[in-house]
This record gives sequence, C-alpha cells and structure tokens, in this order.
Amino acid sequence: MTSESSHSAHIQGLAQAAREASRRLATTSSEQRTTVLHRLADQLERRAATLLAANAEDVLAAADAIDASSIQRLKLDAAKLAAMIQGVRSVAALPDPLHRVQLRRELDAGLELTRVACPLGVLCVIFESRPDALIQISALALKSGNAVLLKGGSEASRSNAVLLDAVQDSLREGGLPEAAVQGLPDRAAVAALLQRPDLVDLVIPRGSNALVQSIQAATRIPVLGHAEGICHMVLDQAADTAMAVALVRDAKLQYPSACNAVETVLIHREAVDRLLPALVDDLCPRGVELRGCPACLGLVPDLQAATEADWDTEYGAPILALKVVADLDEALAHIRAHGSGHTEAIVTDNPEAAARFLAEVDAASVFHNASTRFADGFRYGFGAEVGISTGRIHARGPVGLEGLLSYRYLLRGSGQRVEDYSGPSARPFKHLDRPLIP
Amino acid sequence: MTSESSHSAHIQGLAQAAREASRRLATTSSEQRTTVLHRLADQLERRAATLLAANAEDVLAAADAIDASSIQRLKLDAAKLAAMIQGVRSVAALPDPLHRVQLRRELDAGLELTRVACPLGVLCVIFESRPDALIQISALALKSGNAVLLKGGSEASRSNAVLLDAVQDSLREGGLPEAAVQGLPDRAAVAALLQRPDLVDLVIPRGSNALVQSIQAATRIPVLGHAEGICHMVLDQAADTAMAVALVRDAKLQYPSACNAVETVLIHREAVDRLLPALVDDLCPRGVELRGCPACLGLVPDLQAATEADWDTEYGAPILALKVVADLDEALAHIRAHGSGHTEAIVTDNPEAAARFLAEVDAASVFHNASTRFADGFRYGFGAEVGISTGRIHARGPVGLEGLLSYRYLLRGSGQRVEDYSGPSARPFKHLDRPLIP
Repeated sequence: MTSESSHSAHIQGLAQAAREASRRLATTSSEQRTTVLHRLADQLERRAATLLAANAEDVLAAADAIDASSIQRLKLDAAKLAAMIQGVRSVAALPDPLHRVQLRRELDAGLELTRVACPLGVLCVIFESRPDALIQISALALKSGNAVLLKGGSEASRSNAVLLDAVQDSLREGGLPEAAVQGLPDRAAVAALLQRPDLVDLVIPRGSNALVQSIQAATRIPVLGHAEGICHMVLDQAADTAMAVALVRDAKLQYPSACNAVETVLIHREAVDRLLPALVDDLCPRGVELRGCPACLGLVPDLQAATEADWDTEYGAPILALKVVADLDEALAHIRAHGSGHTEAIVTDNPEAAARFLAEVDAASVFHNASTRFADGFRYGFGAEVGISTGRIHARGPVGLEGLLSYRYLLRGSGQRVEDYSGPSARPFKHLDRPLIP
Repeated sequence: MTSESSHSAHIQGLAQAAREASRRLATTSSEQRTTVLHRLADQLERRAATLLAANAEDVLAAADAIDASSIQRLKLDAAKLAAMIQGVRSVAALPDPLHRVQLRRELDAGLELTRVACPLGVLCVIFESRPDALIQISALALKSGNAVLLKGGSEASRSNAVLLDAVQDSLREGGLPEAAVQGLPDRAAVAALLQRPDLVDLVIPRGSNALVQSIQAATRIPVLGHAEGICHMVLDQAADTAMAVALVRDAKLQYPSACNAVETVLIHREAVDRLLPALVDDLCPRGVELRGCPACLGLVPDLQAATEADWDTEYGAPILALKVVADLDEALAHIRAHGSGHTEAIVTDNPEAAARFLAEVDAASVFHNASTRFADGFRYGFGAEVGISTGRIHARGPVGLEGLLSYRYLLRGSGQRVEDYSGPSARPFKHLDRPLIP
C-alpha cells in the first residue's frame, strides 16, 4: 500500500466511524446529549491550566507567522474560556431539536403520517485560527445529534488537541461514541472528504471569504455559509438625518470586519445635500475612509474617489463607499448588481418606500430603519449560530440548530394497500391534520 | 463570434431573462398567479385539437426509435389531456405558498423580525418523454413564483412546442412576463446552465435513474430528486401472513416501475416457513419472478438464485429479491448497506419491533404495516408533487410546493443600533414570539 492510499484509507476509516457514531446519536435522548454537554463544560473547567498552557505555546509558535488580528483570535484567556464554557451550557439548555413532530396527518382511518426532525448525519467543519470554534461547533453538532469531522487551523493545533480530548472524554463519560467528534489530520484529509458525498452530508467552512470560496469550488457536497457580505444601506429621500448617521456609524464601525457590516451607502439625490455632510462630519473624525462617486465629490471635493471596484468590495475595515442614486429604482438596481444576498437595509420615514424595499430586495435579511449588524443568530433569538448562509436552498440567513436538521416521514398503518386508493372506485384519502403532540 | 459562443450567449440571454422574470413573479399576488393558471387551463382546452395532432406526429416519428412504454408516456389522448387540465386547476386552487409569515418575533420594542416565504428563483427542469410533465412543472413553478427553464425529450418536441406556447400566451394574457417559462433548445444548453450556479438556483431532473445520475454528476447547483429507489420490506417474526402477502403484492405489483415499489423482501428466520410459501403461492401465479437467497432456496428449491448484485438492483419490473435474516438487527444492517434512503417498511404485529424500525431506519419514508407505494406527494396530501428527494438537505421525501420555496428575514426597526445591545451595559433582547398573522 502506498503512503497516499494508506492516508486515504485512514481518512475513509475516520469518516465511516463518524457515520456509525451518527447513527447512534440519531436515536439518543435529549438527556443523553445534554449530559455530554454538561460534562464537556466540566471538563473544560478542569483543564483550564492545561489548555491555557497549550494555547500559550501556540501563540508563541505563531507569533512571527500570522498577523496581529489572527493572534487575537488564536489567543485564549480566562475570559474567553469562561465564555466558551458558558456557551456549552447555553447550548445544553436549548430545547431539544430532535424527534420533534413537524406534521401529523391522518391519511385515512388507521393510517397516520408524521414528519419528525432528525439529524443531517456527518458534518465536516473547517475553521481557522479561533480554537473556541471547535467547542462551539462540537456543542451544536452534539445537541443536534450530528457527528462532526473537524479541521482547525494548524497554528492552533496544541489548543485544539486539548479541546478535542475534552470533547471525546465527555462523550466517553456520557456513554456515547468518541468517533462522534474527530479531528482531521491535514488539508489532504479535507480535500479527500470533499470528494465523498457518500461520507459527508454537509460542509461548513468558518473563516475567511477565501476559505469559503475555495471549499465551495472544490465540492458537490452542500456547503453552508457565505463567501461574501457586501451589504448596502439605502438612505432614502425621507431618511431622518440623525437616524441615518447613527445607523451607518453602527453598521460600519460597531465591528468593521463582520460580514454584516455595511460596505456601500446609497444616498437619494434629493437628500444628499442634507445627508452627505452629516455623514462626513460624523465618520471622518472616527477614522472612516470615505470613497465617493463623482456626485459625492461634487459636494465634498476632498473625498477620495470611488472606482468601479469599490462597489464589489467587502472592505472588512473602516472604509465606506458612497454613491448618489436618482431614486429607489436605481438603489434597487445597484443592490441587484452588486449585493451578495446577505443583508440590505433602508433608512426612511416613508412607509411606501420601506414597503417596496422589504418586498423587492432579494437577500437573506432585509431591514428597515435598523443596523445591518442585527443579522445574526443570537440577535434573532436562535440561541446558537451555525453560520450565516447566502444560499437559497436549505437554510438561509443566520442559521440556528434548525440548519443541522433534516426530517423523516413515518407512516403507521394497519395493512393498507395503495391499490385500494387507486382507480375508478378508489377509496378517498381523509388528509386530516392533527395537533402536533411532541 | 463563433457559432459556439453565439449559442452560449443565447442561452445566457434566456437565463437572464428568466432571472428578470423571476424577480417580477416574486412580488406578484396570489390572484395574479392563479389567473395565469386558469388561463392556461382554458388555453389547453381551446388547443386540444392542435395539441393532439402535434402529439400524433411525435408518436408517428418516434415509433421506431423508442420502446413501447416510452411511446405510452409520449402519447396524449382526451383522457390524459383532461387530467392535465384538471391538474392545472388543482394547483391553482392550492393555498398560496408565497409571502407566508413563518416566524414573527419582537426582538425589542419597535424592532420586529419576521421570516417570510419567497420563491427560490430560477429552476431548470429536465424531463423525458411525457409532455404532460411540461404543464405540471410550469403550473407548480408559477404557483410558487419561480421562473423555469425547461428541456423536454426531443421525441416530444412538437407536443412540447404547443404546450409551451399555451403557457406563454397565458402569461402574456395575465400580464406576467413570458420569459418566466422558457424552453431550452438542446442538451448543450442544459450542459451550459449546469455550470452556472449564478443563473440557476435548483435543478430538477424528472426521468430515468440514468438521467438523474448524469445531472447530479455534472453540476454543483443543488439537484432535487433521487437516482435510485431500492426499497425494502421487512417481514418480521410477528408479521401477519395475510397482511404480509397483501402488502408485498401491492408494493411490487401495483406499479412495478415506480421508484417506491419494493425490490427486496427480508424475511425473519423464525417466520420463513410460514411466510415464504405464502408469498410464492401468491406472487408466482401473478408472474412475479422471485430470486431467493440460499436459505430461501433450501425451502423452495425451484426459486431462481439471487446473486449479490440483486441486493443493489432496482428492477423497475415484476422481479423480487428475497432474503432470510436472523433477526431485526440483520435486516437493519442489510437496509443500511443496500437501501437508497427512499422508502423502507416493516410488517409486524410486534409494537417493539415496529418502534425500533421507525426510530432507527434512516430513509426519507419509513413505514409500519403499509405498502411502500404510499410514499408519494399526492397520497401524503401535498396536492401537487415536485418530485421525491433522497437528499438530506432542503426537502426530503415526497416534495410539494414547499420544496420550491426559500425565505427572507425582514426586520422592521425604529433606528436601533447593535452598539446599544452590546458590551457590559448591553440592553437585553426580548425575543418574544408573536402570533403569525399572514
């Protein structure tokens, strides 16, 4: 056996063990899964010193290789660890997503159809420097009865090893198979699994746009996520000045590298005299680099000029593109041409303009008089967030545990045959919906 | 411009026109879409003679090229036409799937989140000889506000041209863009679109397993459907003999070429003496070819011997494989190894065996004491069926109009900023669910 085929056999073995474990998880009770999560929180508390020491080694080793913001993401401290542990207990406390009855229908006397939530099966999750992602993902996967194959950033390898060990010990203590959560050794393992729709049911890349794009391009397995967050804020003719400025500031500056931060502000021509100077006065002193269209430059000549590329750029930084539009039609057309279907917002006191914007914009989240930064699973009240999807199939927008579920139809009969419900003297169906008793 | 690039520009133009039309459809009222469907039913009534004449030409031209069962599918008559028209009126009568509020949550005072159903966008549907599929698919797409690009079988080209014309005239009469439903000229057009996830949101192949497999292998766009229907029926130790025989007969013979017909029957060892002779006595005189495992042959020596390949074969014909299993564990393991995740059934009077089967089998439909042939959108009460999916992502099992929908999150605020809900003195969210007012 060559080393390549031995690697491939090893990865296939991991994935098959995950599949076996997922079958076991699918039939567990809420209590069994919750117990494992509580044990995980306890394990993390007990291993605090080991974990922080391993993480310090990771940070030291990575210091010259990655940039300052990646180091920040990589670095764990007592506060981050406490948040991680609290996160696990919060997921444990969520209502059980499995085995819920979504539909209950009497097809005929003694022939009852139900639709019941079930796990997707095996997830493959690829994440970058944050080691806390490993715990968050494992908690969400276990809560929803899914097995998960994890590939973290190599710069976090020592931290991830301690965390994975804690997860697997918790599974063992709780009487569930350790293979439910496994690490993947290298990128070659990920590449191999991306070619195996029979072994992996859903791929979740968590990290940079480049990571997500490369994964999407490399697989036919469904990918949950978003490659780009080019979000717009439309300041309508009837936008209140103070509200418009406050919302743009929040949407740009509250967390500039977030995917739901605003990148381009579209200003109605009839309001630009009023709104543009107010935006400039508020944002420039806060260090925001403004890039304007020619009409903006006509009003505020010392702005930097925006190029065509600006309309398609997710800055992830305190930079904002500004464009004057003739009317709502032009704003909608610009969003169609340049938006990424993530989050779009309008600021207006005109109910007709708001209604039209909410009705016509095709994006996962469409807002009126609110900051784009609200597009988030926690803020939407989902308790835990798997990610934000810009795809239209399966889950869209901020995705909670629901995105990790499928369903099965169960039919309980008493000997019914389709023959009796077919042909000229067919027995009719009742199709009576019944209350959903969980 | 070469002829190839001109073809490609033409196809891209069709798809972009479909995208434009889909935007228009997304904001239409239920009445507008229903009107078009009623006009379509009227159009089909008026064009009956033209359609049947075109179809007769198709049948004549195809007579030597395709087999008898394909000719049957291709051929239209007054009864099929009446059913087609009735089908359009039934879809028109279904409740409006669009704009439904699926979630309504007060995040805070004056900050309300709703989740609202919306169309997927542009569908690409590939179907084989049945021309009635064109009308069924167009009706489902229009009802759900989706545009659709259709490629029918070339043997039905004359029939399809008349039908497409009727659809486009109905759209025009109803004031909606004709480009909402368009035909694709050839297979090269389909191949080109399968490479364009930006132009097509969902691919629906309707036809043979070979068609579905070739499409799935050729695209990264989500595909709704199933390549295989290898369905099992487990006859448990506690199966009633008469019920077991009646259900196997129905599941095999009521429509042998259906995807939900049974292919393999797994018989509990402790009941095989009783059940196997009863099955043989019932099915052999009806012309079913039985293929048995060695244990079956030990009991009924004149059965044909099953080979390993039989366990993985969808016969689509009155052929049935029979295998003796030691217990429910072995039956479940056989289904895991050979099932296609479509429909699996158990016949038993033992409630524990039934409960375990329903809990553990991972398939879109799992049945107790009912024929596998019930796995169908009409029988489940969905009114109209898009197809049956064996994927776990998005829609699973028989798919009604729901499978052609996505959703958008709409947030209506009054100037809220995320900054106020963050940090140490964060304002808490209310997250109060409200009644769903449509």
